[in-house]
Amino acid sequence: MSNAPAALPHLLIVGGGFAGLNAARSLRGAPVRITLLDRENYHLFQPLLYQVATAALNASDIAVPLRAILRKQQNVSVALGEARRVDLDNRVVHSGLGPISYDYLILATGATHSYFGNDAWSSSAPGLKTIEDALDIRKRILLAYEAAELEPDMDVCREWLTFAVVGGGPTGVELAGALAEIGKHTLANDFRRIDPTQVRVMLVEGNRRILNAYPEKLSQKAAEHLEKLGVEVLTGAYATSLTDDCLQVGDRIIHARTILWAAGVKASPIADSMEVDRDRAGRINVEADLSLAEHPEVFVAGDLAHIEGADGPVPGVARAAIQAGIHAARGVVSRIEQTASHPFVYRDKGSMATIGRAAAVARVGNWNVHGWLAWVMWLFVHVIFLVGFRNRFQVMLGWAWSYITFQRGARLITGRKPDLNSNVSEQVRPPGHSGPVPHESLPSS
Amino acid sequence: MSNAPAALPHLLIVGGGFAGLNAARSLRGAPVRITLLDRENYHLFQPLLYQVATAALNASDIAVPLRAILRKQQNVSVALGEARRVDLDNRVVHSGLGPISYDYLILATGATHSYFGNDAWSSSAPGLKTIEDALDIRKRILLAYEAAELEPDMDVCREWLTFAVVGGGPTGVELAGALAEIGKHTLANDFRRIDPTQVRVMLVEGNRRILNAYPEKLSQKAAEHLEKLGVEVLTGAYATSLTDDCLQVGDRIIHARTILWAAGVKASPIADSMEVDRDRAGRINVEADLSLAEHPEVFVAGDLAHIEGADGPVPGVARAAIQAGIHAARGVVSRIEQTASHPFVYRDKGSMATIGRAAAVARVGNWNVHGWLAWVMWLFVHVIFLVGFRNRFQVMLGWAWSYITFQRGARLITGRKPDLNSNVSEQVRPPGHSGPVPHESLPSS
Repeated sequence: MSNAPAALPHLLIVGGGFAGLNAARSLRGAPVRITLLDRENYHLFQPLLYQVATAALNASDIAVPLRAILRKQQNVSVALGEARRVDLDNRVVHSGLGPISYDYLILATGATHSYFGNDAWSSSAPGLKTIEDALDIRKRILLAYEAAELEPDMDVCREWLTFAVVGGGPTGVELAGALAEIGKHTLANDFRRIDPTQVRVMLVEGNRRILNAYPEKLSQKAAEHLEKLGVEVLTGAYATSLTDDCLQVGDRIIHARTILWAAGVKASPIADSMEVDRDRAGRINVEADLSLAEHPEVFVAGDLAHIEGADGPVPGVARAAIQAGIHAARGVVSRIEQTASHPFVYRDKGSMATIGRAAAVARVGNWNVHGWLAWVMWLFVHVIFLVGFRNRFQVMLGWAWSYITFQRGARLITGRKPDLNSNVSEQVRPPGHSGPVPHESLPSS
Repeated sequence: MSNAPAALPHLLIVGGGFAGLNAARSLRGAPVRITLLDRENYHLFQPLLYQVATAALNASDIAVPLRAILRKQQNVSVALGEARRVDLDNRVVHSGLGPISYDYLILATGATHSYFGNDAWSSSAPGLKTIEDALDIRKRILLAYEAAELEPDMDVCREWLTFAVVGGGPTGVELAGALAEIGKHTLANDFRRIDPTQVRVMLVEGNRRILNAYPEKLSQKAAEHLEKLGVEVLTGAYATSLTDDCLQVGDRIIHARTILWAAGVKASPIADSMEVDRDRAGRINVEADLSLAEHPEVFVAGDLAHIEGADGPVPGVARAAIQAGIHAARGVVSRIEQTASHPFVYRDKGSMATIGRAAAVARVGNWNVHGWLAWVMWLFVHVIFLVGFRNRFQVMLGWAWSYITFQRGARLITGRKPDLNSNVSEQVRPPGHSGPVPHESLPSS
């Protein structure tokens, strides 16, 4: 089944996200044997992950099997397994599949959540990086309403209907907007005892303003849009304590039984296995051409890399990862051909975040847009960049349906049963009450 | 939030499947307070579950939230919780939410897998009843190809590419057909070392013929269609032993690393908590009007009930469950109004099973159809009966896409990470080999 002589150099790409996948695709026809190693069998369109978490899209709408994408590119093999340790000196990556040796390496394993040293918070306030994270968050959101419906204690009921999002970057803004819409529109008439439109959504940001990386005017517009949706925006205050049902922000205490974490990221743990220069977030400091100083055969791209650009570090966004992945692939070709490699230059085409129904903010070059027009632009850009044709079409359809009906199609509580059968019944008991829930607390019409 | 006086009698419906949901819907406007208790928050369109298991459809394509379906029916409250025990004498159902008392009860908790006393087989050969089952089976199927791709031992590789389905009823036939198509079409070009079109699918049936409940001619046509797809059909032989990688059928030994169970069903465990007359499969024997002999306030409908019809027991199919659910609801109204209830009569409109791409068998009254026409009928009937509009449309779209491209859109391996990171690497090791997989066993182009 070999289509190329084994003498071709072996490039191992670790990670099938925006950087790794685009590195592989840009090497179509190049004289190199490529192995793309990922712990999942799919490429995930992460910018839309919050829509899976908020029940607007299906997991498979935003994830395409890597094998399907790379089917026709004969110089790539996809391997399903987790990279655990990089042995730079021996040019070997140790993985769940055993050791894999390489001639050239592109590391693109991305980032994970950072709780800034408070790792115990992770079980109370999950972050959003993977499909599993999204399905877990979806379950928590939907179960919160179910628990509220059954809760006899009005104070606890209010806690179930309070949602707090920590972190006012694009993900936090998008989550908060969607959470408000779920209560006010999607679930408005679904319950008999509670009124879902009484939902309370808090967005907490440590900086002086949300969307800190955006122009100030857009931050302000985003906050206005959110407040119109009923989201309470708290800025300039950091979370100082966090439990399953309580969040302390500065001197304010928020009683919320669903807390989501969108505040910090750090480099994925594989970076810990290497003796390389790293920044505070654990990202690997790379040379101008994205290679490692002592190891010109190794390149790092995407959120795992700290890349210094003309205006500070290159941001951790999809466009930057795509560009860096392609650049790293070119670097590998330079090494093979023994030509000079070029410094990476990030071409910033702008950034955008959606806030809710027909509202978004966008910066395109120096042009700032907000409201309906920004939303249409956001829609257009995100659909264009979705990888598979079917996904594009299904996502459009899902959105059109949601837009017209105010409904969300993926409102399933899935996952392990124990969560449902024990936890819910545990959770719906008022504190200090260990007997069965009285029948009066059950919904009755 | 009460819309009706509390003095109205309380009907508890346990189970939101075809029987329970239709019982609730048929009581719109009736003078009764209804609680619909289910352990899931959705109604599942079970006849299409095998399409989720075989990656053709998303979970949310065939599941609709119960609250969304019943939103406008003010006399129904949906409660999310698991029924555990029925106390007939005190008219109380003990559930994960605590005890729930009732004036009238409709039990419709359905059926689960039966391994005919060999419960240890369940971990080796999962059955298909829930969304979680379907996602587990999907993961097993897709991981089998991944494992085969990495397997250096050719005998083990063949075992990974061999799929056995136990049970030749409609579910078994549909699974076997889809399994053959996945290898021959969907994954045909996705791998570098293995040839997925070499997949082997075995369908094992204890009776003399598959689709035993269908006219003999259709059984024969179904077997022909399956064999055309490359499925090996073994009839007249029972599974006598079953492990993770081996199935014994009569005196034949099948080495297969993916074995699926579609052979038997039994009543859901709640029936064990009641002292009532039951059949061999644990189903509750009911009176002609579907009530319990000693408890006229309790009705049983759907797969949990053993109902004697004119031509033997009423079959465990969706149409029968819908009819029985509606009939049970009418029985409750008769009791409330103190009028006579009527015996249940099953109106058999026919049955159909799909075999693969543009092939199905159908019986409509005494008319037997097979091939393309039956498939179109199957498509039409299944789309018509899907509950939500969006689902219908999305399912149609998904099928159209699959039909044109031979692709399957939901090919994600999701679920808990441990399965992926430890199991795969465990599984891909040849027996007796505990060290790391040698690099040569990794795919190379």
